[in-house]
Amino acid sequence: MTIADDPATIAPAYKWVGTRPVRPDGFDKVTGRARFGADLRLPGMLEGAVLRSPHAHARIHSIDTTAALAIPGVKAVVTGADFPEPNGHPTDQDLARNIIARDKVLYEGHVVAAVAATSKRIARQAAQAIFVEYEVLPFVLDVDAAMAPDAPLLHDDLITKGVDPAPTEPSNVASRVVYERGELDQGFAAADVVVEREFTTKPVHQGYIEPHAAVADTTPNGRSTVWCSSQGHFAMRTYSAKVLGWDPTRLKVIPAEIGGGFGGKTTIYLEPLAVALSHKAGRPVRLVMGRDDVFRATGPASGSKTRIRIGADKSGKITAAQLWMAYEAGAFAGSPVGAASMTSIAGYAIPHFLIEGFDVVVNKPKVAAYRAPGAPQVAFAVESVIDELARSLGIDPIDLRLRNAVEEGAQASYGPKFPRIGFKETLQAIKDHPHYSAPLGPNQGRGVASGFWFNGGMNSSAVVHVNEDGNVTVVVGSPDIGGSRASMALMAAEELGIDYNRVQPVVADTEQVGFNDVTGGSRVTLATGAAVVEACRKVIADLRARSAKQWDVPIDQVEWVDGQAQHVDGSQPPLSLAAIAKGWGRTGGPISATAALNARGVGAGFSTQVVDLEVDPDTGYVTILRYTTAQDAGRAIHPSYVEGQMQGGVVQGIGWALNEEYIHTAEGTLDNPSFLDYRIPVASDLPMIDTIVVEVPNPGHPYGVRGVGEVGIVPPLAAVANAVAQATGHRYTDLPLSPPRVLEPLLDGEDRSRAEDRSA
Amino acid sequence: MTIADDPATIAPAYKWVGTRPVRPDGFDKVTGRARFGADLRLPGMLEGAVLRSPHAHARIHSIDTTAALAIPGVKAVVTGADFPEPNGHPTDQDLARNIIARDKVLYEGHVVAAVAATSKRIARQAAQAIFVEYEVLPFVLDVDAAMAPDAPLLHDDLITKGVDPAPTEPSNVASRVVYERGELDQGFAAADVVVEREFTTKPVHQGYIEPHAAVADTTPNGRSTVWCSSQGHFAMRTYSAKVLGWDPTRLKVIPAEIGGGFGGKTTIYLEPLAVALSHKAGRPVRLVMGRDDVFRATGPASGSKTRIRIGADKSGKITAAQLWMAYEAGAFAGSPVGAASMTSIAGYAIPHFLIEGFDVVVNKPKVAAYRAPGAPQVAFAVESVIDELARSLGIDPIDLRLRNAVEEGAQASYGPKFPRIGFKETLQAIKDHPHYSAPLGPNQGRGVASGFWFNGGMNSSAVVHVNEDGNVTVVVGSPDIGGSRASMALMAAEELGIDYNRVQPVVADTEQVGFNDVTGGSRVTLATGAAVVEACRKVIADLRARSAKQWDVPIDQVEWVDGQAQHVDGSQPPLSLAAIAKGWGRTGGPISATAALNARGVGAGFSTQVVDLEVDPDTGYVTILRYTTAQDAGRAIHPSYVEGQMQGGVVQGIGWALNEEYIHTAEGTLDNPSFLDYRIPVASDLPMIDTIVVEVPNPGHPYGVRGVGEVGIVPPLAAVANAVAQATGHRYTDLPLSPPRVLEPLLDGEDRSRAEDRSA
Repeated sequence: MTIADDPATIAPAYKWVGTRPVRPDGFDKVTGRARFGADLRLPGMLEGAVLRSPHAHARIHSIDTTAALAIPGVKAVVTGADFPEPNGHPTDQDLARNIIARDKVLYEGHVVAAVAATSKRIARQAAQAIFVEYEVLPFVLDVDAAMAPDAPLLHDDLITKGVDPAPTEPSNVASRVVYERGELDQGFAAADVVVEREFTTKPVHQGYIEPHAAVADTTPNGRSTVWCSSQGHFAMRTYSAKVLGWDPTRLKVIPAEIGGGFGGKTTIYLEPLAVALSHKAGRPVRLVMGRDDVFRATGPASGSKTRIRIGADKSGKITAAQLWMAYEAGAFAGSPVGAASMTSIAGYAIPHFLIEGFDVVVNKPKVAAYRAPGAPQVAFAVESVIDELARSLGIDPIDLRLRNAVEEGAQASYGPKFPRIGFKETLQAIKDHPHYSAPLGPNQGRGVASGFWFNGGMNSSAVVHVNEDGNVTVVVGSPDIGGSRASMALMAAEELGIDYNRVQPVVADTEQVGFNDVTGGSRVTLATGAAVVEACRKVIADLRARSAKQWDVPIDQVEWVDGQAQHVDGSQPPLSLAAIAKGWGRTGGPISATAALNARGVGAGFSTQVVDLEVDPDTGYVTILRYTTAQDAGRAIHPSYVEGQMQGGVVQGIGWALNEEYIHTAEGTLDNPSFLDYRIPVASDLPMIDTIVVEVPNPGHPYGVRGVGEVGIVPPLAAVANAVAQATGHRYTDLPLSPPRVLEPLLDGEDRSRAEDRSA
Repeated sequence: MTIADDPATIAPAYKWVGTRPVRPDGFDKVTGRARFGADLRLPGMLEGAVLRSPHAHARIHSIDTTAALAIPGVKAVVTGADFPEPNGHPTDQDLARNIIARDKVLYEGHVVAAVAATSKRIARQAAQAIFVEYEVLPFVLDVDAAMAPDAPLLHDDLITKGVDPAPTEPSNVASRVVYERGELDQGFAAADVVVEREFTTKPVHQGYIEPHAAVADTTPNGRSTVWCSSQGHFAMRTYSAKVLGWDPTRLKVIPAEIGGGFGGKTTIYLEPLAVALSHKAGRPVRLVMGRDDVFRATGPASGSKTRIRIGADKSGKITAAQLWMAYEAGAFAGSPVGAASMTSIAGYAIPHFLIEGFDVVVNKPKVAAYRAPGAPQVAFAVESVIDELARSLGIDPIDLRLRNAVEEGAQASYGPKFPRIGFKETLQAIKDHPHYSAPLGPNQGRGVASGFWFNGGMNSSAVVHVNEDGNVTVVVGSPDIGGSRASMALMAAEELGIDYNRVQPVVADTEQVGFNDVTGGSRVTLATGAAVVEACRKVIADLRARSAKQWDVPIDQVEWVDGQAQHVDGSQPPLSLAAIAKGWGRTGGPISATAALNARGVGAGFSTQVVDLEVDPDTGYVTILRYTTAQDAGRAIHPSYVEGQMQGGVVQGIGWALNEEYIHTAEGTLDNPSFLDYRIPVASDLPMIDTIVVEVPNPGHPYGVRGVGEVGIVPPLAAVANAVAQATGHRYTDLPLSPPRVLEPLLDGEDRSRAEDRSA
């Protein structure tokens, strides 16, 4: 279902944009021909293994690789000593230390050494034969422990940024961010109702199907070709070069097909290790993670704690909001608490607020981006409290949001003014949907929540080549993680006026296309798409010029219509793209164009979602009965992909809400590093997720595109919690809402002791 | 040694152009890492074998593949019936029939069927198990036999083109070309001396080290990726598509490194067979030729017969020339007799001439381009006769050539007026060289000859990307057969003002760069080079614009000097390319540019060469003692490569002159299909070839480049023959000058019978 534009802004009917053709990469994927990161096998290739820290926090006194190197078949071992001393920007130093530990290991799974050998078995055996002398240190696993006055410190030199005056002593707090407006006291004084609560979330993993893999083939003269699946091979090149101390252009990174990333593949783990091993061994080296490596050393999204207070008057107008939040960064600074602070109340026009966020290091893997990084955790808090306010005030929760929702011209809580946005349209779409007024049964609840995400712009390049048969190749450097090959081909077909099947989209390596930032921030259809559109327009200008030359008329007498050059007065028979290509030798040679840009005009994304669920009062098990999501896509280039992104975000949000969490042992090690014990939703857990694609065109993009990949994961945590609150009468503030946690407050005394018996 | 420009045209001193840095592809080549056509191994790949005709000419009555298909491990067999009926342009039909025979085989080695199996051994066994019922037909092997009145016909429908009125009966003469000027009788009447002779040359092979190979991976939905080494992967795509009846863009052709081509890899042999086998088998297929396949079915250069008459007056002025020539095309029309006719006397201003050329089909493999196609054979005749005229007139042979040589403004024998050219400069360079006046010993001779080649332009595309570290990637689609990676990087470094080592040249596949014609016609440094220069200049314009933006000044106040933007009045600190790249996010995103062109301004190439040799009067064995070649390179971008091209052309010409020839059995089959029996010169046969790089800049190229790959092979045939004439006192007119052929006329009666005994 699609909510059309209002008539005033409807664009001319498109021929290709908005249609649902077969995806260009579909055939290879369904027939198993697509090559993912671990699928490459080079002649003479060695297999690698990584030795990881068994401790959450320990000092390394020595590493002895003698026994490992003595094993027949072992060709190379690297430790931190094989890499240059971390230097440059603190972020770069952290990156280098996260790839391979130097003096300290900071989490269970932290890389200590890596081995290349003639087989995976030998490599693993050799890794185990490396003797590491550790001094085990006390550790901290959550923000409370990490922020405690006498907490063990991960880094001796970490001074909190954003505090004035700067602290003199190191701590585990990397930084503090503040956003504020108005007078908080005045705002709360104007409130008739104030809700104040504390919420927590656990780290959750992006849960992509494909574990990380990297193959490196390094020449003795210090150049390396790296194959890996990632969300951005240019970033993999840049980051790997930093860790290696190389110029980026000594590396060529070839993008493998990617089996999911969701933000977690915007950084590196294995690549510099593979390059260094290959350099030492003089042969190609492949490193492939197991699922346990993925859980122990990559991803996750931050665990968080949020203290929140929001006030509203009787009319439902929110008068003030105060948020304090602390996000786990993992072992190195850099949680998304900044984005969390900025997004937290961005959907609402609130006159008085104070938002304070803390970035806290803990002895867990460094967090990585995960769809709308930082936003779901804080939205869980904000949207739960708004739900509670609505219920306290007896106002429909959508009406309360409509009363406070931002619209064009409003100043966002984080600063800029919004251009045209579609938040209210998503609220109205849910309100108008039959789902919202359907009856509920016993033990059932309905929850609503909304979400905001900035979406991203950033740098993109594209090249468009016309072939001698008039078919067109569109070369981009953005890995296709969500259908961008199809989107690029659709926009190119639309611009050029040719059949979609005549456009071949290609994802090129770092040497064959201009620079591109990562495929992330829901930016590719917008930014790379804009580059493709610009390159196509340059090609059209060239096609018109060549036709004008052939007809010996001024170029302004030539129009490009339906894939052919037409003389304005019809005095010449039209020239098709294929005809112009055939004659290009006489008009100036082959036809190509590049475009590169740092995308402006990013359009923010909003989503409003409603869920019906049933809570089993005996077990606490939550069954999702019905789910409807409305999201502003600006313009859905390929609606099936947009719907897929919306559904995927919801499903991952449901997993976050109900089941997913990192569980640690008393020793600080991960107790559930597999999909058996870390429970992500599977198809049989869920109903079909209904989608409403709202299209409020983004004025900053030629087709009105907004990013669609991220905002969908922002509302589900709160939507589910709000529905569980209605179904149970209890307001839950700690995720996940797994059966024991749901059941606990519902039990009377006798039930409680029975439940305790069961769990013992 | 380099002859500098005259001061009037000397360009500003270049920093990179004209230097000799290490080649970018050198490391991989000397360490064995470079991947040639046969080096690729894909998972599940099958090996192929080809069944070739054992007959020079035969009708195919039937092909039975039953037994072959029954062999375990055989996965696919293709015959002509698996390909679409040849249609379209006659050239395309010939191409299709040359790839795989239909109703007739036209030469020994003509492909009849191809097999893919799990091993090469099984594939070969299966190919032999294919039963072909042939009706053997009479054949013709040379132009005399083919042009005889009752000659067996290769093609029932071949009507000679270029004859008026058109013949009504088919023949083996595909076409006739004529170039004429003035009044022949008048010209010869003005002559004081006329020399008339008949010359013949045998087919010779390009003799590249690397046999042809192709790997194809075809999907069931009818797309195929082809890896092959060639002189132009776009042409391989176009040609293969024609044979397969596919749109070219269904094929992706990835260029392998190439181990020599010299023109012989500008066409296809195995590619469509590999695609079709892979399509049938559903697996990748590799086809690799043996040396015997290469000799029997690829290449060669035309055998030829030339009748020639040239007259000159006592002053040495040539008054008239008449040429009749017939060139073997092999089994399908298309010898280079047209180019032979055009180049034959292009170096000389002759008032009266008539040139008539015939393209003749014979039962041998279809000829392919070989360095300056067609020119060496006819130059052997022309330059031998000019030598004889000079000796008759008592004029130094260089002086005679200087007296008649074309220069700027002269109308070429084939039509256009010459722009600035360097023919006289090459003559003078040889005349001035100490070699030319060095003393000779007994049985030694010195020969001089000159040569002309048009050089080529054609379509080229290039893309230039700036990387985030300020290093630059230059993407071209021209395979590097003679150092073009280095040349492109040098020109880009010169244009951009950055270090050569900061430029990474890349040869991209057919999907990642715009269209490019073949690497041939000595065109790449000129045409692809011009595209690279143009793309660099676009990048510089962009760099200036960004600097202007950053400084908030008009762009015309920003100059690009020494790799950095400088404000004209020095009021801003200069911005390096790296600095601009670092800040590109603020100035408009990444920096890339494409350029594509059909190159104009091609500059013709001339070479003059002198050789000293000694003839062993007892054996007829010729030893090359000294060889000096002067060639106009216009501008030597990387002089080592220019010298290498000059030397390589000379060496191949010496082989052509002295040893190389196809020898056929009475059955019309090739008797010497290996490097044991087909003798190419090796290093121990030759002295160092001295080079004089003459630089008369080509006004049509930004750096004055002329093609250098071809003209060097034009003079050696005549130069060697002229030297042998001087050493022996006998004028030889039939190549090669192998020992028995040299000895034969030198023998008195007794020697002759002894020699006959030896050879019996």
